[in-house]
Amino acid sequence: MRVDTVPDPVLRRPTDAIVRVTDALVCGSDLWPYRDCPPDRVGSRIGHEFVGVVTDVGAEVSTVAVGDLVLAPFVYSDNTCPLCLKGVHTSCRNGGFWGSGDVDGGQGEAVRVPVADGTLVRLPADAATDDALRRSLLPLTDVLPTGHHAAVSAGVVPGATAVVVGDGAVGLCGVLAASRLGAERVILLGRNESRLEIGRRFGATDVVRERGVAAADAVKELTDGLGADAVLECVGTTDSVATAFAAVRDGGTVGWVGVPHLDKGLPAGAMFGRNVGLRGGVAPVRRYLDELLPEVADGRLDPAPVLDLDVDLDGVPDAYSRMDDRSALKARVRVSAP
Amino acid sequence: MRVDTVPDPVLRRPTDAIVRVTDALVCGSDLWPYRDCPPDRVGSRIGHEFVGVVTDVGAEVSTVAVGDLVLAPFVYSDNTCPLCLKGVHTSCRNGGFWGSGDVDGGQGEAVRVPVADGTLVRLPADAATDDALRRSLLPLTDVLPTGHHAAVSAGVVPGATAVVVGDGAVGLCGVLAASRLGAERVILLGRNESRLEIGRRFGATDVVRERGVAAADAVKELTDGLGADAVLECVGTTDSVATAFAAVRDGGTVGWVGVPHLDKGLPAGAMFGRNVGLRGGVAPVRRYLDELLPEVADGRLDPAPVLDLDVDLDGVPDAYSRMDDRSALKARVRVSAP
Repeated sequence: MRVDTVPDPVLRRPTDAIVRVTDALVCGSDLWPYRDCPPDRVGSRIGHEFVGVVTDVGAEVSTVAVGDLVLAPFVYSDNTCPLCLKGVHTSCRNGGFWGSGDVDGGQGEAVRVPVADGTLVRLPADAATDDALRRSLLPLTDVLPTGHHAAVSAGVVPGATAVVVGDGAVGLCGVLAASRLGAERVILLGRNESRLEIGRRFGATDVVRERGVAAADAVKELTDGLGADAVLECVGTTDSVATAFAAVRDGGTVGWVGVPHLDKGLPAGAMFGRNVGLRGGVAPVRRYLDELLPEVADGRLDPAPVLDLDVDLDGVPDAYSRMDDRSALKARVRVSAP
Repeated sequence: MRVDTVPDPVLRRPTDAIVRVTDALVCGSDLWPYRDCPPDRVGSRIGHEFVGVVTDVGAEVSTVAVGDLVLAPFVYSDNTCPLCLKGVHTSCRNGGFWGSGDVDGGQGEAVRVPVADGTLVRLPADAATDDALRRSLLPLTDVLPTGHHAAVSAGVVPGATAVVVGDGAVGLCGVLAASRLGAERVILLGRNESRLEIGRRFGATDVVRERGVAAADAVKELTDGLGADAVLECVGTTDSVATAFAAVRDGGTVGWVGVPHLDKGLPAGAMFGRNVGLRGGVAPVRRYLDELLPEVADGRLDPAPVLDLDVDLDGVPDAYSRMDDRSALKARVRVSAP
């Protein structure tokens, strides 16, 4: 992981915008390539969570203007194609991921934003000067809507019992989302005390420190032997996915948002026999912003506690290292003043 | 497959009832053990779809009485345990499958029915003398609610585009159910003309005769390149499950009810990346009877066309053989007069 100088981005298409990044975040999913990518001389861009100020717009851009403070979801999308209209912005016909192909990563000084009208969302002007507000808004780029997607996909409804597998930033946002959606009981699985404490502030009614089969047993003890109606799988490992299926009740649903890295496949036979559903996937963040952003803006919903480390651009490699060894939960990269 | 003489069933528990079977059905899922079971001298009971007359009840049975014409769903269940109350009767804590352990199969002259109050549903008295009405009610034991479960699990809502994979009795009932739930378009995948004709009568707006990738391509052509919102997987083979996932749109849902016999696992990576959900499983028939039975009783819903072969008890082996070679769709076993 290194910080390098690259050419400034320029408009390439009339639907592009250029954003000078003020804040970027480092994501748990960034750690997969951090761990797996062999060192090479060329390198590639990375980062998919950023907020910044529009500095240039193409001729066809109409919803944002130079000077606007904007937020980008973790994929770009036109917000008008048939799949965006169905709420699956991550499958947008004109969309894609930051840092792939000729598209910039979000952890940098500036980004060329494709299909800017569909991608960028304007933030309240206050957020330029109110750093605490901006900090609360930053998780809207990914982890808050991703936790929300887990809760929605798992079918959390008022009165439901929910389990959240994973005490990372997404899992904690899943607690916040499940609680917001009216879950009567939110059981957080984790073992890091400071993270569990954030989980409690976010609405966890119970915490389970065991792992694997023991964790599922503990969930069953808390749920009259049934298991949970809704399980939010926010990790993606073989073990965490197995725990999710062990903790859900028959007829319940696992909502998964942790990028799956599975040694064995999904438990098809048990899913069928127990009527356990599986929904979710790469979170279509854009779909949820109109619903979630106003609540964060007015303080009803505050995911800021998941950001526990601030670095500048030169501190990005350190941020990866500390998130990798779990001494930091999630890093905010302060790139420039708005 | 043979017809054998076994002891008459007797009450064993105060919650049991004895039912003299008037009609039984042969299910596509009965063909799995028919094909796979090695011949042995002992044999085991089979059949899980039956209607009959109550001939004896235990001391604690209160909802059915001697002389009642009743229907049994394809699993028995107490209808009161926490999982039944959640609508997952197939996971009932006091439930189980017909023909397993010391429980009789449904293809026979009489059956001891455990937890009779929860299991048995009374039929309109007319059905004792009105053979056509009884014929229409018989598929409520399994295939009609199973097709309905596929449609509900796949998330069919008014205006949705649905695909049904499989032109067996369950698939055809899936067409009926999807149409009843308001699907604007119901695309049936199959190649048997007489079955496709039933599918059209049941509400299929389109039929696709291709298989596999070609079938999914045909679905995409019919859906502006998107695929279907909801896919009802009513077969359970490796190929049919693959076709289901290929035919569903990103963000859509596969509802599966075909007992899975998969050579390879579920497509976890594609499901996650495309936000394709998977729900369903062994259909909790009892859950749906209060909703579906009145509509069949008054003629609004008529699944009788899926029954295209009548046999008596001695004809059961022939019925299996003809369903196995697909020359019959689904057999009704006329066991005795009501």
